Amino acid sequence: MGDDHAVPGASELGQEMYQLVTELYPICRSITGDGVRRTLELVGRHVPLETFEVPSGTQVFDWTVPKEWNIADAWVKDPRGERVIDFGESNLHVVSYSTPVRMTVSLAELGEHLFTLPEHPEWIPYRTSYYREDWGFCMSEDRRSRLKDEDYEVCIDASLEAGHLTYAECFLPGRSEEEFLVSCHVCHPSLANDNLSGIAVASFLARHLSRLDLRYSYRFLFIPGTIGSITWLAHNETAAARTAHGLVVAGVGDPGPFTYKRSRQGSAEVDRAMCHVLEHSGSPHQVADFSPYGYDERQFCSPGFDLPVGRFSRSPHGEYPEYHTSDDDLDLVRPEHLAESFIQLLAAVELVEHNGTYANTNPKCEPQLGRRGLYKAVGGQADQEAMQLALLWVLNQSDGSRSLLDIAERSGLVFGTVRRAADALAEHGLLEETSPASQR
Amino acid sequence: MGDDHAVPGASELGQEMYQLVTELYPICRSITGDGVRRTLELVGRHVPLETFEVPSGTQVFDWTVPKEWNIADAWVKDPRGERVIDFGESNLHVVSYSTPVRMTVSLAELGEHLFTLPEHPEWIPYRTSYYREDWGFCMSEDRRSRLKDEDYEVCIDASLEAGHLTYAECFLPGRSEEEFLVSCHVCHPSLANDNLSGIAVASFLARHLSRLDLRYSYRFLFIPGTIGSITWLAHNETAAARTAHGLVVAGVGDPGPFTYKRSRQGSAEVDRAMCHVLEHSGSPHQVADFSPYGYDERQFCSPGFDLPVGRFSRSPHGEYPEYHTSDDDLDLVRPEHLAESFIQLLAAVELVEHNGTYANTNPKCEPQLGRRGLYKAVGGQADQEAMQLALLWVLNQSDGSRSLLDIAERSGLVFGTVRRAADALAEHGLLEETSPASQR
Amino acid sequence: MGDDHAVPGASELGQEMYQLVTELYPICRSITGDGVRRTLELVGRHVPLETFEVPSGTQVFDWTVPKEWNIADAWVKDPRGERVIDFGESNLHVVSYSTPVRMTVSLAELGEHLFTLPEHPEWIPYRTSYYREDWGFCMSEDRRSRLKDEDYEVCIDASLEAGHLTYAECFLPGRSEEEFLVSCHVCHPSLANDNLSGIAVASFLARHLSRLDLRYSYRFLFIPGTIGSITWLAHNETAAARTAHGLVVAGVGDPGPFTYKRSRQGSAEVDRAMCHVLEHSGSPHQVADFSPYGYDERQFCSPGFDLPVGRFSRSPHGEYPEYHTSDDDLDLVRPEHLAESFIQLLAAVELVEHNGTYANTNPKCEPQLGRRGLYKAVGGQADQEAMQLALLWVLNQSDGSRSLLDIAERSGLVFGTVRRAADALAEHGLLEETSPASQR
Repeated sequence: MGDDHAVPGASELGQEMYQLVTELYPICRSITGDGVRRTLELVGRHVPLETFEVPSGTQVFDWTVPKEWNIADAWVKDPRGERVIDFGESNLHVVSYSTPVRMTVSLAELGEHLFTLPEHPEWIPYRTSYYREDWGFCMSEDRRSRLKDEDYEVCIDASLEAGHLTYAECFLPGRSEEEFLVSCHVCHPSLANDNLSGIAVASFLARHLSRLDLRYSYRFLFIPGTIGSITWLAHNETAAARTAHGLVVAGVGDPGPFTYKRSRQGSAEVDRAMCHVLEHSGSPHQVADFSPYGYDERQFCSPGFDLPVGRFSRSPHGEYPEYHTSDDDLDLVRPEHLAESFIQLLAAVELVEHNGTYANTNPKCEPQLGRRGLYKAVGGQADQEAMQLALLWVLNQSDGSRSLLDIAERSGLVFGTVRRAADALAEHGLLEETSPASQR
Repeated sequence: MGDDHAVPGASELGQEMYQLVTELYPICRSITGDGVRRTLELVGRHVPLETFEVPSGTQVFDWTVPKEWNIADAWVKDPRGERVIDFGESNLHVVSYSTPVRMTVSLAELGEHLFTLPEHPEWIPYRTSYYREDWGFCMSEDRRSRLKDEDYEVCIDASLEAGHLTYAECFLPGRSEEEFLVSCHVCHPSLANDNLSGIAVASFLARHLSRLDLRYSYRFLFIPGTIGSITWLAHNETAAARTAHGLVVAGVGDPGPFTYKRSRQGSAEVDRAMCHVLEHSGSPHQVADFSPYGYDERQFCSPGFDLPVGRFSRSPHGEYPEYHTSDDDLDLVRPEHLAESFIQLLAAVELVEHNGTYANTNPKCEPQLGRRGLYKAVGGQADQEAMQLALLWVLNQSDGSRSLLDIAERSGLVFGTVRRAADALAEHGLLEETSPASQR
Repeated sequence: MGDDHAVPGASELGQEMYQLVTELYPICRSITGDGVRRTLELVGRHVPLETFEVPSGTQVFDWTVPKEWNIADAWVKDPRGERVIDFGESNLHVVSYSTPVRMTVSLAELGEHLFTLPEHPEWIPYRTSYYREDWGFCMSEDRRSRLKDEDYEVCIDASLEAGHLTYAECFLPGRSEEEFLVSCHVCHPSLANDNLSGIAVASFLARHLSRLDLRYSYRFLFIPGTIGSITWLAHNETAAARTAHGLVVAGVGDPGPFTYKRSRQGSAEVDRAMCHVLEHSGSPHQVADFSPYGYDERQFCSPGFDLPVGRFSRSPHGEYPEYHTSDDDLDLVRPEHLAESFIQLLAAVELVEHNGTYANTNPKCEPQLGRRGLYKAVGGQADQEAMQLALLWVLNQSDGSRSLLDIAERSGLVFGTVRRAADALAEHGLLEETSPASQR
């Protein structure tokens, strides 16, 4: 497994991921229902998925798997029979998990079920009502303001009935039973960045890793937000306990700076790896401390699990204007942003894959690098000085107690250089691995 | 016990405290004598006090309780019989603990016993000579410069004889034997901020707490500086060892910024509580590290005791021009400054009173707050967002190892909000207290 | 042993050290050979030295002691018999460890063995080829550019044969077997700052200490760089293990700011001592974290030894333009810079010599300093306030767990004041030493 961060074909890869986003975009997803099933089917064309169906009513910790929701059509018609709201135009028009309804109401009555975004009068907001049975429509403030004071026929042709919650896993076995968990939520309808971007990047990362010889086992979760991670954790406590590293991937297709949110543990290896990768990425980025508000890291980092799971995003949820609106569309997400996000995630994966701990076999004084051809002889011209320093740092710090990431952090050198130095020293018998990451 | 920091009646309270300062101001206090007794008598009208009399000559650690000093009158007369210095005008005119004297001296001889403040020519300095028997007068540089070169009759009608050192305690028993110590010095004559302000605020804090159901027991000390705290510690080692938190209160009536000086321990709970309160006070404030120079925290924080006792002041001693001069008067201290100081102290007391440690009873994943009415349903409109975050933070962090103050510090939320969130969660059985402050 | 940092006769001392630099300057030194022997002979006139000769071929850890190199003369002559390069003018002209050579070559062939510094066309660079047998000449770019395209006669009258590596020690026994190691490299030819300055300062520091009653034993090493420290460590593992503190001294005669490079341990006592001394030096200075690149600290701080050895320099090696060129000459080094460096080193030595740990014999409350004449009575007028604070700090912190350096660091006071306070308190029986540095 190489660590060439200038991933060959990044441009094509960006196009492939964007293509998947485009295919998934029209589907009306929610936390249950056929939209999720159709989504997993499309993802499954790229990576091997195992799909799970959990019956409504199943108790999962403090929660209960809800009824399954499906929707065929929905509209509001004015007295002239014209659709003033049409689900066919955008699935954001219907509040997710709306109960079925068919009746005629006055504008005043209808208004109690209408949601708009006055500050962005052309955009349709995204609203849900998962755990309180109700119905509603979302529309632009512009259209809302043109509604006349007359009666309207309302139809939501939906079903809310006992069924299943659907999620999928892609498991890639590695040499170790310890797992690297990557989780993305699949419950949002036509919102491109949140989270078709995460689904696409996770899918193609899984595809990329599936072709490699891996130290860790990798488990990719495609789950509905909150109830999905709770359901998975309730049914997979043993697997969860094997989680050595984890990332929630969401909102990775917009042009914002990379954002890493630390796990509850704060400086778990995955936290340090992501921080190191972003620090050396040459791209704008920010690191946020853990907080119990956000995506599914809330569940993975609940005190009863406290897994080392951070979150990787670009613009953080709620902090970009298009968030949870119809403007989170196929124009907000771009192939190059998806590719850049992929590259950072892959770099973090490569880091933990190779973050071994070594012992200098010749710890008293420096070994003579010159007669082994290692003095000013490893590495290309450009990074020769860094490589020379990396050789000295690895020799000096490798007393069996410090990992290569420890050494990279202390020296200020990029992990890839430190790792290549360790490889060269190990080849010459000057270093032996004492503790691969997978045995710690 | 509520934590509404906008204490009802703060304005009236400020007036009451200022009234006490005004009553105490004319009394000539020193480290012993009737001035201290009269002071404690006036304080005793507001809170139940137990007064102690320790005989002169008593050995207290490395020190000896000194002779008792009392003064009836003192003056310096010119040859025309006119009083050029008159104790009746200001008790600062006589160096505290001056030996009795009655004689006629030349201006040159008198000059060796005169103290002025050339840099503030209108002010009378405050001087003492507790442990070296001598006599002296303090006066303004303006008056000093007008003294003619002639003979003066000098009289200090004082007594320095075997007697007692007087101090008092107000003890408020709580549910725990662990104590919160509040100490103020009562040895300064007509100096309003140093320390009638501390006496007044401590007295009314004691009065306020005496009406409440308390976790900690509270012990308020009204003692002369240095020799008083040494005497108290020498006679109360067992009580001292019960001190869980403590504060020296001095100089809390001037308009300066709040100043908290950490205990020798540095981050004891009282240190963290005061820092948290001041940080969220919205008022100018500063926090100083411990140093062994200052008021009675020097004794409480001596290495043989090392009690968690910090100091709460406004302008630090020695750092405002009126310090130890006749301009530390009833104009420097204002009712509103006293009230503001009271509010900060009360907030710190409330914090440690309620700084419990809890365990989330449902630690695996989040509990479903919505069905319990806790989702966006607790707290007023204004702080609804903070309350929602506080619920999540308390659930996430409460694994039995973190106190509510730990959670407030990590989340950046104010303690009161965190505490209300914990109360709401505990009411719904989602949290149980594992370790109240009083059992740690 | 006093700590008066305004060392009496610093000016004369600077002159004496500069005189030694001047005597050593013309000698052609390398990592072996008679130049080193002659150097040690001159140093030995000031301090008692024991000289060691280690045979070529001796295995020292991963290295082998090389053949001994000596040189009598070297030159390049043009067809007219004129010396265009002459070893007699500067010993930098010959690449150190050049093999013997005598032949006629074209300018093109000669050019492959010529080294210049195009960015400083008047300077001769300094080059070596210790571990790869080769020959070469160094010259100024100015002269190089005037060479015509004709044949040149080349002569290096050198010998590279089995012999010895020479180094010396000056050992000063102290009351403790624990050692303070001072190491300087003696392998560079006519380069004044690197490292005749270090040799001179180390020599005179040894002379100064040899006249004192010392707590620690001191070991001064005069060794060739890299192979010398490796050889010493290989032959002195037991002595090395007694190293409580250590400093590599190099480049201490130029006008640059003082530079301290921490040991691998990072905050060993010597690290903290040097930082404290420089912080209070009133002179420009910088502190660098450890890195495995530099002088012989690389070997002393290899993981198998990990000795508390830092490095003291002025301008760091490689960071001043004259470094490793003919302009590192007797003009770059000045007597006053040598003297200033001596003073900082001596201050650090005095600090660790006196860095005892004490227990307050009267730990409960403060002792009464006044009746012992210690209240505002110790120290000169100028530092009376600092001394007063130092007395309080030492009493407050001395619980047997904190050294005087701990107290100086926490209080912000200079070590000398803290030490004088401790001495005064100990004289009055208020303090007893619990753990001298030499017993820790």
